[in-house]
Amino acid sequence: MRPNPYDDPAFFAAYAGLERSQHGLAGAAEWPTLRGLLPDVAGRRIVDLGCGYGWFCRWARAQGAAEVQGIDGSARMLARAAEWPADPGIHYRCEDLERLTLPERSVELAFSSLTLHYVAALPRLLEAVARALVPGGRLVFSVEHPIYTAPRRPRWIEGEGGGKAWPVEAYLAEGRREVEWLGCVVTKQHRTLAGWINALATSGLAVSRVEEFGPSAQQVAERPEWAAERERPMFLLVRADRAAPR
Amino acid sequence: MRPNPYDDPAFFAAYAGLERSQHGLAGAAEWPTLRGLLPDVAGRRIVDLGCGYGWFCRWARAQGAAEVQGIDGSARMLARAAEWPADPGIHYRCEDLERLTLPERSVELAFSSLTLHYVAALPRLLEAVARALVPGGRLVFSVEHPIYTAPRRPRWIEGEGGGKAWPVEAYLAEGRREVEWLGCVVTKQHRTLAGWINALATSGLAVSRVEEFGPSAQQVAERPEWAAERERPMFLLVRADRAAPR
Repeated sequence: MRPNPYDDPAFFAAYAGLERSQHGLAGAAEWPTLRGLLPDVAGRRIVDLGCGYGWFCRWARAQGAAEVQGIDGSARMLARAAEWPADPGIHYRCEDLERLTLPERSVELAFSSLTLHYVAALPRLLEAVARALVPGGRLVFSVEHPIYTAPRRPRWIEGEGGGKAWPVEAYLAEGRREVEWLGCVVTKQHRTLAGWINALATSGLAVSRVEEFGPSAQQVAERPEWAAERERPMFLLVRADRAAPR
Repeated sequence: MRPNPYDDPAFFAAYAGLERSQHGLAGAAEWPTLRGLLPDVAGRRIVDLGCGYGWFCRWARAQGAAEVQGIDGSARMLARAAEWPADPGIHYRCEDLERLTLPERSVELAFSSLTLHYVAALPRLLEAVARALVPGGRLVFSVEHPIYTAPRRPRWIEGEGGGKAWPVEAYLAEGRREVEWLGCVVTKQHRTLAGWINALATSGLAVSRVEEFGPSAQQVAERPEWAAERERPMFLLVRADRAAPR
């Protein structure tokens, strides 16, 4: 398996300090929007691609999910997930998403939070997901937005009227981006919006709703430092459905 | 009807000088990509929303379309379209797209080139289009890309390595943008990507393919001044299908 940045002790320690690591779903500003794309999970079989500490797996079980598979490429992450009290309905597995295979028609919901922008072989993975979904099943995911991932040197500049602006460049050049995050160099994959949507459509997953997360007025009032996040979207949230048979 | 910028003589004269006005589809760099989203038009009934001089209407008839309705909000544009030799299969009509109604299940294809970003009441129009399409019918359109329409003062700045960058700001603030074009102030509507896709989905039009136009390597070789257009997409091209009945 390729080295996973989350297995780097320094990176892992810095990641553990993030609000979303400490407070889980409640610490992720985009969670209410992402949750709005989910079906009722009660009684469903679910796979979570890039489950990290297992926050979503545990939330889904608390909502009555029948069975949740948490998959992550980082053994260190999964060791942390294993520290929670055991739940016979959650199964964690260390697997490289570049090579993942899943049993056909085995889940009603595939979920992924801020993981798929690390996957180079995205079309291959989406085909595996489409096959793993039952007809009428759903994929819900968040990724870094193409506007956010495009520049080779991501940065804010001064915008109109004293606000901030986000310079977009190299947008149509899909592929690797190496950016500094939490003191490490992290490799991710920039895809255009067309790249995301067409890869889904080609796999038989029809996009039925898209959200571009920005903080609400209330969130900005509570966190004035988030105001700039309304200037350009940081996350793309997608709901896509596997067609039911005719 | 509201005043239409294309009815302003100075604006109309400047527009007439554009390459796409003089050479029609062949003068529009994105046409080959847009054409790739179209179904075979032979024998089909088509409506063209914002037909301008009628280039597309005439192309579709040359490809064997049964009947084409060309609709435009500018009487001056349609007067120019009427200068072509008459074709009994093309019907031009001056109508405001903010209020357009169309007969139900009357067309197999709805087409629109660089027009819908002027329409404020987009959900209303898309519902009219969805009803006008036969089950299995298709909408194909191009609009200015959300990245392009977001800033209140659109401009290039210097980017990394001597290239150009496009500052995105006010992305999540959908609504009016007043920009200078061809020496006039033109009012258009900025919508987020989610705004476009969700308005389509709500109307029962499922997005099946998206393209973000940028010039090819060959186009840049022929027109070095187009190189910057690969830094950020100027046009969003969409194919959406009306579901066939189950």
